[in-house]
Amino acid sequence: MSQELTIAVDVMGGDNAPRMVLKGANIARRRFPGVRFLLFGDEAKLTKLMRRLPRLRKVSSIRHTDEVVTSDAKPIAALRGARRSSMRLAIDAVRDGEAVGAVSAGNTGALMAMAKVALRTLPGIDRPAMASFFPTLKGESVMLDLGANVECTAENLIQFAIMGEVFARSVLGPLQPTVGLLNVGSEEVKGHEEVRRAAAALRDTRLPLRYHGFVEGDDIAAGTVDVIVADGFSGNIALKSAEGTARLYSEFLRQAFKSSPSARLGYVFARRALNKLRARVDPRRYNGAVFLGLNGIVVKGHGGSDALGFATAISLAVDMAANDFIDKTKSEIEKLDVEQQVPSQVVAS
Amino acid sequence: MSQELTIAVDVMGGDNAPRMVLKGANIARRRFPGVRFLLFGDEAKLTKLMRRLPRLRKVSSIRHTDEVVTSDAKPIAALRGARRSSMRLAIDAVRDGEAVGAVSAGNTGALMAMAKVALRTLPGIDRPAMASFFPTLKGESVMLDLGANVECTAENLIQFAIMGEVFARSVLGPLQPTVGLLNVGSEEVKGHEEVRRAAAALRDTRLPLRYHGFVEGDDIAAGTVDVIVADGFSGNIALKSAEGTARLYSEFLRQAFKSSPSARLGYVFARRALNKLRARVDPRRYNGAVFLGLNGIVVKGHGGSDALGFATAISLAVDMAANDFIDKTKSEIEKLDVEQQVPSQVVAS
Repeated sequence: MSQELTIAVDVMGGDNAPRMVLKGANIARRRFPGVRFLLFGDEAKLTKLMRRLPRLRKVSSIRHTDEVVTSDAKPIAALRGARRSSMRLAIDAVRDGEAVGAVSAGNTGALMAMAKVALRTLPGIDRPAMASFFPTLKGESVMLDLGANVECTAENLIQFAIMGEVFARSVLGPLQPTVGLLNVGSEEVKGHEEVRRAAAALRDTRLPLRYHGFVEGDDIAAGTVDVIVADGFSGNIALKSAEGTARLYSEFLRQAFKSSPSARLGYVFARRALNKLRARVDPRRYNGAVFLGLNGIVVKGHGGSDALGFATAISLAVDMAANDFIDKTKSEIEKLDVEQQVPSQVVAS
Repeated sequence: MSQELTIAVDVMGGDNAPRMVLKGANIARRRFPGVRFLLFGDEAKLTKLMRRLPRLRKVSSIRHTDEVVTSDAKPIAALRGARRSSMRLAIDAVRDGEAVGAVSAGNTGALMAMAKVALRTLPGIDRPAMASFFPTLKGESVMLDLGANVECTAENLIQFAIMGEVFARSVLGPLQPTVGLLNVGSEEVKGHEEVRRAAAALRDTRLPLRYHGFVEGDDIAAGTVDVIVADGFSGNIALKSAEGTARLYSEFLRQAFKSSPSARLGYVFARRALNKLRARVDPRRYNGAVFLGLNGIVVKGHGGSDALGFATAISLAVDMAANDFIDKTKSEIEKLDVEQQVPSQVVAS
């Protein structure tokens, strides 16, 4: 672990802020003894809450601001109006080199808009993307974009593939992650023009990227590839459809265990194993969504997350910084000459 | 139940055909005493297998053919080359008025291509769509399109909304089903141009259609609306993402119950309740996918389905015919004047 990494934290974002955020930072502090925190928010409140967190206090600096981006603020309005908000100041700290990454559980759209404007995209990347982890039969995989870009060109998808591959390599572990393009079938002729053009380019790429081919919606949970690349529209729908199904299954399971005295007894015996199952599909473990493709690390914690979830989001920012995610992405993108590689049209055979 | 409905069955389609198909038809026969079957396939094989199914034999006619559409056949090739296939002949029987609906567990792409060519779309409908049921927290809902149309205009989506609403009303039960458009957010400014244009038209429609607004991926399993309308790309990804997650959850649950002696014991006590849970999320119950918008009823059974799944697919065809699905759809579509209702552009405010 590299020493003296500083993480900027928007302490006022999220349903249970600021208490939940501080508790999350305190968990992260125990995980990463070398990390410092730059906390943006209401100084009086933070000082009071931190009386009970003296060790966190020691490794933190507080920067006071009264302004907060509300959860229902429109991105454009937040961008223009909330320049002194805890969220914006945390991002600005990354831009100014005071912190290696910013973490917020606040308004996603506002965070993305501010991060884009303040940090700008890396050279060679047209649009940033939102990425997150998914539990799979084989472990974990990464999917992007999850909703930042409703419409995507082949060039966008290729850039996402590179960003996602470097991210998986930096954070997930596999030395040579495999990459798939989300589509409605695995044959080359399937899908719309942009996804076919992106596939043609990735197939022929000279990048050291292990392109698997097209994957379908059920390949996400199957763990067929390490990185799933999608436009923001279908990526968001895949993510939320999976979340909804997991919730439905949990609820059906809860009802099943309440449906008879025998089932209730069965629950008592199986409880410990079922709690482990819950931890395995626990959204808190998959709680950090990250914005990739920017000149800086920005991690979004889930708005409704608890301290453990927020600690996971902070851990992700620390891991990315410690593994030089930004520099690695830059160097991969430099290897890509999009003009040369993307055919302008792919004819369905 | 209306009497003397005849269902055309492609007996040769599906992984376990023809045996599984005949067993499925036999289950459906018990459910619907008034229904007759027109069976297309290898006469020698069918006659032999049906020695054990004398009651099915009584209500069935066999039409011999040697030709079969293979599961890996390309739709266009099947369309041109397999005019005497069991699949094609079953569809032709619907076109010729010999049967009220056709059911096949064979190659989906070929079935759709043949159905489009042989039956053609209903007046006022540009493209057929594939629809299916989903289990939800509130019961069941219908989603379409699930992959027949990768790219959809606002006009397509509006037609899908009408077809889906009539389908839900005919088969699912609610007198006034609610309809939602699948999107990445619930605000009016979200999503791409076509989905926003469709929303604007559905909001202002004079049709007796209860338009709810945009829904997101997690609304599918939540049962927020009765009918979810999507383009075929995102609908297919939502469907398969949900299927993959359900499979992941089942597998994690199986592992949890094997993880300790206590958990194994718990499983013994809870087994009956868990089997009910399995039946509740059982894909066989949701096994019929239907092609809507055609001049005739065509139901697709899952390729890997068993007899019970195939019986569900037949039941769906019978229900649609008995509830005058085609005529009801025609009369709703006639009420729609698309030209007049769909704004050519919706400006994001």
